Amino acid sequence: MMRRVRNFAPGPSALPLSVLEQIQRELLDWQGLGVSVLELSHRSEPFRQFLETAEADFRELYQIPANYRVLFLCGGARIQFAMLPLNIAKSGLPGLYVDTGFWSHLAYLEGKKYLEARVVASAAASEYRAVPPVSSWELPSSASFLHYTPNETLIGLQFAEIPKISSEIPLVADCTSCVLSEPLDVSQFGMIYAATPKNLGVAGLTVVVVREDLIQQPSPLTPSAFNYLLQDQHHSLYLTPPVFAMYVMGLMLSWCKQQGGLAALATISERKAKRLYQVIDSTPLYVNQVEPAFRSKTNICFNLRDVSLYESFFAESVALDLCYLKGHAEAGGCRASVYNATDEMAVEALAQFMIDFAKRKG
Amino acid sequence: MMRRVRNFAPGPSALPLSVLEQIQRELLDWQGLGVSVLELSHRSEPFRQFLETAEADFRELYQIPANYRVLFLCGGARIQFAMLPLNIAKSGLPGLYVDTGFWSHLAYLEGKKYLEARVVASAAASEYRAVPPVSSWELPSSASFLHYTPNETLIGLQFAEIPKISSEIPLVADCTSCVLSEPLDVSQFGMIYAATPKNLGVAGLTVVVVREDLIQQPSPLTPSAFNYLLQDQHHSLYLTPPVFAMYVMGLMLSWCKQQGGLAALATISERKAKRLYQVIDSTPLYVNQVEPAFRSKTNICFNLRDVSLYESFFAESVALDLCYLKGHAEAGGCRASVYNATDEMAVEALAQFMIDFAKRKG
Repeated sequence: MMRRVRNFAPGPSALPLSVLEQIQRELLDWQGLGVSVLELSHRSEPFRQFLETAEADFRELYQIPANYRVLFLCGGARIQFAMLPLNIAKSGLPGLYVDTGFWSHLAYLEGKKYLEARVVASAAASEYRAVPPVSSWELPSSASFLHYTPNETLIGLQFAEIPKISSEIPLVADCTSCVLSEPLDVSQFGMIYAATPKNLGVAGLTVVVVREDLIQQPSPLTPSAFNYLLQDQHHSLYLTPPVFAMYVMGLMLSWCKQQGGLAALATISERKAKRLYQVIDSTPLYVNQVEPAFRSKTNICFNLRDVSLYESFFAESVALDLCYLKGHAEAGGCRASVYNATDEMAVEALAQFMIDFAKRKG
Repeated sequence: MMRRVRNFAPGPSALPLSVLEQIQRELLDWQGLGVSVLELSHRSEPFRQFLETAEADFRELYQIPANYRVLFLCGGARIQFAMLPLNIAKSGLPGLYVDTGFWSHLAYLEGKKYLEARVVASAAASEYRAVPPVSSWELPSSASFLHYTPNETLIGLQFAEIPKISSEIPLVADCTSCVLSEPLDVSQFGMIYAATPKNLGVAGLTVVVVREDLIQQPSPLTPSAFNYLLQDQHHSLYLTPPVFAMYVMGLMLSWCKQQGGLAALATISERKAKRLYQVIDSTPLYVNQVEPAFRSKTNICFNLRDVSLYESFFAESVALDLCYLKGHAEAGGCRASVYNATDEMAVEALAQFMIDFAKRKG
């Protein structure tokens, strides 16, 4: 009898059972070729076609305009923190960063190795309980780009909307933890990017969607593997890519379409988050101090007002197969990450446990 | 009934059936945790332990001295072409390169973005039929490193031995296509590295083995994800790594140990290569112009003297489930890559086909 727990991990995270079963079913012989997808050349025609379909699905889900390139690059989002300035910085123009927490700060630290990087706004003033309003940002008239992190996974802080800034400054967003969780108007961005180990499958791959006019003059210091222009010319196959991660991404995109697309997924995502925040707000034991408008829909963070109860909270939740609820080492507390593959039944089981636990211990 | 062809692909390439079956068997529930290895955090204790065991197995197989660090970095070997100079170049000292074909040339081209790169020897003089003897190399008294490619997969040209150069110059080898195919005295190197999609599993990961004194002063331009010192301090988990590729690598290392280790694998590897070269040399239809001492043991390249026969050669071989025998687009001709997972039965089937084909068409 196969055991499957309720997985609230922040990434790598839960995958849909149907996707896992498909991977398992076709693992020894992919598409009747007599080889595993793990043994298959990325340059083989069947794989090229599979990747083309994946790109088409991604474009369809987000309705990506034709003047945007979709690139599949190896490794995680942190690599793009470096590759963003190397590929799209304009000589002499700074990179602008909005500090809303751990990930946006890391993007800034990495970016300033390669260009003049400026923090134009910070959520520090609100103790990271709110995204600072665009009206307070210190924006120059031009810049290489403005980078922000729509959703900060450690503290569960999420932008309520796409910031409206001058069209002279390309807007860049690290969508790793919110990709495929709701519709997004890509035309408002210069570039969005998202690593795969949450809603896009397994670790080892990052999708970059970038306006084609921005990638024409990469720095000569850009490693070829991450040269957006070169990789675009080679359909992301300039070098051997992470084939398996691409394959799982393709399955995930297909699964997202089967669920009804981004609007349908957003509805479910909102219901899941609402349920958990409702339990947190109505139960004195739990606290989440992020302003409601800026609460993450994918990473529901909370603390226990009685710190002596953490140990039993984690022990009892694990005993009920409610797993990976510990907060990030840098943040502490509890965190329930509820990406697309964590279904409403799992969320309801967690909600019921939280209510019951508080009743017994509160 | 599952179909399995004989896979002679150059990488991604064949995996042992027992490894594929293990992946398949435990895909939905890894180590009884109730989650797939695809859904598991790289920071979870079971995965950390798995990775530690993989490193220990790698160290044991190669008998790696204690003053060498073993790093697992995302992406392919080409990324290391850039990261090598960024991490270990010494200010003002050039990087030296031995040109023996496609891959070593690419390493040089990428390297010269980051330091003064010098080609100190080239196989061009022999039309890439032999590795130039070390005595002919134009070596300065000191350098940041000397980089070479022990095995060139496109043309099947392999170094017969580790080049003996001054210990003042760290020797660096891209072992991607020969890793785990024979023993290697790591202590003679400053660094060796190998991407995984051949004998180490699936694409998306590169193993770097580097002497610890060489990595203490990375360039400030090194992307954090590929900063050897930083990744060493974080046990290769500074950022989310390609978990699945690490997992398959661990299984492959375990499989290699079960086969008897590197000496045993080398014996089989030599037998396979010998059989195919014997067919090539004794059959007028086939030709391989590499000098016997420098012929690759893993990538057996050959041409047909009658170019009109290529089409039927490929069509007939595929009909017998002898697959992926086309040479690289840049090289043309035929190539049988015979890494560890391509067994002697597959090689003998190919040999018999080649003999039979030549008899009928020659």
